[in-house]
Amino acid sequence: MTFADLIEKKKQNQQLTEVEIDWLIKSYLKEDIADYQMASMLMAIWFNGMTEKETAALTKAYVESGITYDISDIQGFKADKHSTGGVGDKTTLVFAPLVASYGIKVCKLSGRGLGQTGGTIDKLESFPGWKSEISDNEFKKVINKVGMSLMSQNEGLVPADKKIYALRDVTGTVDSIPLIAASIMSKKLVIENDSLILDVKMGNGAFMKTLTEAENLAQAMIGIARQHNRQIAIMITDMNKPLGKAIGNALEVKEAWDSLNGKGPEDFNHLVATAVAITLVQAQLFDDFDIAYQSVCQKMQTGEAAHIFEEFVKAQHGNFSVIKNYDKHFAVANSLEIKAMSSGYVNFTNANQLGLLSMRLGAGRATKKDKIDFAAGIYLNADSGSRVNKGDTIMTLFTNKGIDPNWIDMAYQTFEISQKQTKTPVILKIIK
Amino acid sequence: MTFADLIEKKKQNQQLTEVEIDWLIKSYLKEDIADYQMASMLMAIWFNGMTEKETAALTKAYVESGITYDISDIQGFKADKHSTGGVGDKTTLVFAPLVASYGIKVCKLSGRGLGQTGGTIDKLESFPGWKSEISDNEFKKVINKVGMSLMSQNEGLVPADKKIYALRDVTGTVDSIPLIAASIMSKKLVIENDSLILDVKMGNGAFMKTLTEAENLAQAMIGIARQHNRQIAIMITDMNKPLGKAIGNALEVKEAWDSLNGKGPEDFNHLVATAVAITLVQAQLFDDFDIAYQSVCQKMQTGEAAHIFEEFVKAQHGNFSVIKNYDKHFAVANSLEIKAMSSGYVNFTNANQLGLLSMRLGAGRATKKDKIDFAAGIYLNADSGSRVNKGDTIMTLFTNKGIDPNWIDMAYQTFEISQKQTKTPVILKIIK
Repeated sequence: MTFADLIEKKKQNQQLTEVEIDWLIKSYLKEDIADYQMASMLMAIWFNGMTEKETAALTKAYVESGITYDISDIQGFKADKHSTGGVGDKTTLVFAPLVASYGIKVCKLSGRGLGQTGGTIDKLESFPGWKSEISDNEFKKVINKVGMSLMSQNEGLVPADKKIYALRDVTGTVDSIPLIAASIMSKKLVIENDSLILDVKMGNGAFMKTLTEAENLAQAMIGIARQHNRQIAIMITDMNKPLGKAIGNALEVKEAWDSLNGKGPEDFNHLVATAVAITLVQAQLFDDFDIAYQSVCQKMQTGEAAHIFEEFVKAQHGNFSVIKNYDKHFAVANSLEIKAMSSGYVNFTNANQLGLLSMRLGAGRATKKDKIDFAAGIYLNADSGSRVNKGDTIMTLFTNKGIDPNWIDMAYQTFEISQKQTKTPVILKIIK
Repeated sequence: MTFADLIEKKKQNQQLTEVEIDWLIKSYLKEDIADYQMASMLMAIWFNGMTEKETAALTKAYVESGITYDISDIQGFKADKHSTGGVGDKTTLVFAPLVASYGIKVCKLSGRGLGQTGGTIDKLESFPGWKSEISDNEFKKVINKVGMSLMSQNEGLVPADKKIYALRDVTGTVDSIPLIAASIMSKKLVIENDSLILDVKMGNGAFMKTLTEAENLAQAMIGIARQHNRQIAIMITDMNKPLGKAIGNALEVKEAWDSLNGKGPEDFNHLVATAVAITLVQAQLFDDFDIAYQSVCQKMQTGEAAHIFEEFVKAQHGNFSVIKNYDKHFAVANSLEIKAMSSGYVNFTNANQLGLLSMRLGAGRATKKDKIDFAAGIYLNADSGSRVNKGDTIMTLFTNKGIDPNWIDMAYQTFEISQKQTKTPVILKIIK
């Protein structure tokens, strides 16, 4: 087998075998294949794509390149959840306690965020003392005790994906569906959960800009799951507007806590309840999705699963009380209300810019070294689709920085006020 | 301007501007753009191609990356000729003296061969003492005295092409028409000749396997010439069978000498005469191609241009007498006649394999370090399309190596004997 043979096949749109793909990745990690050769292969993949079998083989080679997590000694059904990332997405914080309240275990590896807002781990670090760098043993102990745990994924997780992602980033090959699918799915497959619910975000605030792209990515990931005998369901959800009303870190944790106590925003509650209900059906605790959904909504109303979230934070050394005394612990130097300039129906149309603005306010990282300000962020006082009067507060910006007048311009570009009411669904499609 | 912008444009099949291509090549040579980035760009070019303007801009950037040759102080019309390389192609050796005999100057840079047979310079080194590494001054002196000179191209000629070719070679991006066209044409444009006749070989013994490929390459090169205001004409010629009857180095020099003296093989004479006649029309020495062609044939018959070849070889320090005493100087240890196994019409169908066999016999280099045996090679005793009887000699192999029985099998795979006579033209198409 030579690289010349494989690149020729890929150029001619012939399917590479599992053995060939395995050899390609192993040789690249051993540096028998150079960066420039892998770069040309990635670009050929960008143009010709990969079949389901090829993508699954690539994912397998990724998984086998590094450590995997053995959780076979944890009893019960184990469910995983992942989102491709969006503005205001704090789903995991509510999903996991709810799922755990049914006796299902949530054993989740998670990453930090780079860009608009923090990742789930960054958000959880709003609790002083909360730790994601725990040992495998502690991870399992927390799961067995509380029903859920989040552990920060090892720096060296899936080294093949890490090396190839770095190369894709500088060679124009990031936006390739099979490469994205293999990258996401490999990180899910290193830990042997029984089911996976994936939230593929679509819109200006997400990586996938159109429904077609999102569907293609969903199908590619379903193909990988099928080839690896992993139960999967995918929701394609709207990310032209942010999810929920809070964007930031502590702000989002607070919203998650509210949601667990029956006070969350409607769109967010609906998305979470759907994800949990799908998982309950996957776990065969319910036969019928609608009944499962109603059961979840009831638990959210009664606040039945909230204690699990609190126990989980405490089990990983977090000071949970800060969220109960939010105003005291997360006071900011400056808060700025953005008011409606006219009356009508408000619609948030630019999640991307809201994410960017939130980062400017201090909630996200532009570079790996940046420190996150947990209290910074944006709260959307108005609901998308609701009527506002001139002078009503549309959103509030929270920051500890000096106020930059550009922020106000940016904020005004993120919503429209029109005379016609439009309501768009948060879940666009469910694919099982 | 960033690499990310340019690769995105190329991926989306948008035309890169001359400024962008210039920046791309300069940045690559400065190592501001890495090999892996250029590799992904080359693969994107492999898929999306380049427009005429892009290809011309790439060629320009190539030319500007290194030294150019100023021959403006040489008087008269200056004609260049190039072949994409084929088995038995000794055209330059006859073309140049004939063209020079009309008062046109031939100022030619030439390379060595790697692969099946030697390049023109290797062939000329059959003359003991003949030198291609001469100074620019000596090059011009020989041209002014004899009317023609061949100088070996500088190792550092067109460094951008050299660097990119090395990368293409290991990244599966050699077979890209615009990249091939820019590579060839840049080496022609570094020396300011007035006209160029290009012989694009097509068939199993050439890089272009089909007429369509050859035509596409021809059009790409014509586009480059048009954008650079250079007169060009292209012949697409057959390389399923070798050109002429001699394959090797001294063997080919001898055949060239015979051709200059009215004794060359028909197909070869026709190709040379066509190339020369086209050049005469380009130089406006003739209005009519047919009359020019007849004039050239007459010169070949009468041997009128032969003395120019002799003077040229001597002017560059070669001992010309060896060719006049061929058998003495180029005797070999072993010669092997391949006989017809049946009667019928013979056709040489596998120039590629004849080239390979000739290399095995010692006539070519497998690696840069290999030494060429000038006397080794193949002589095709039978003419393609002619009738042979069982036992007639089809070809003779000449070598100084011990005989390898595989050679005989190889030789028998290079021709067919059938009951139907077929004659195929050597020139398939002329594009001006």
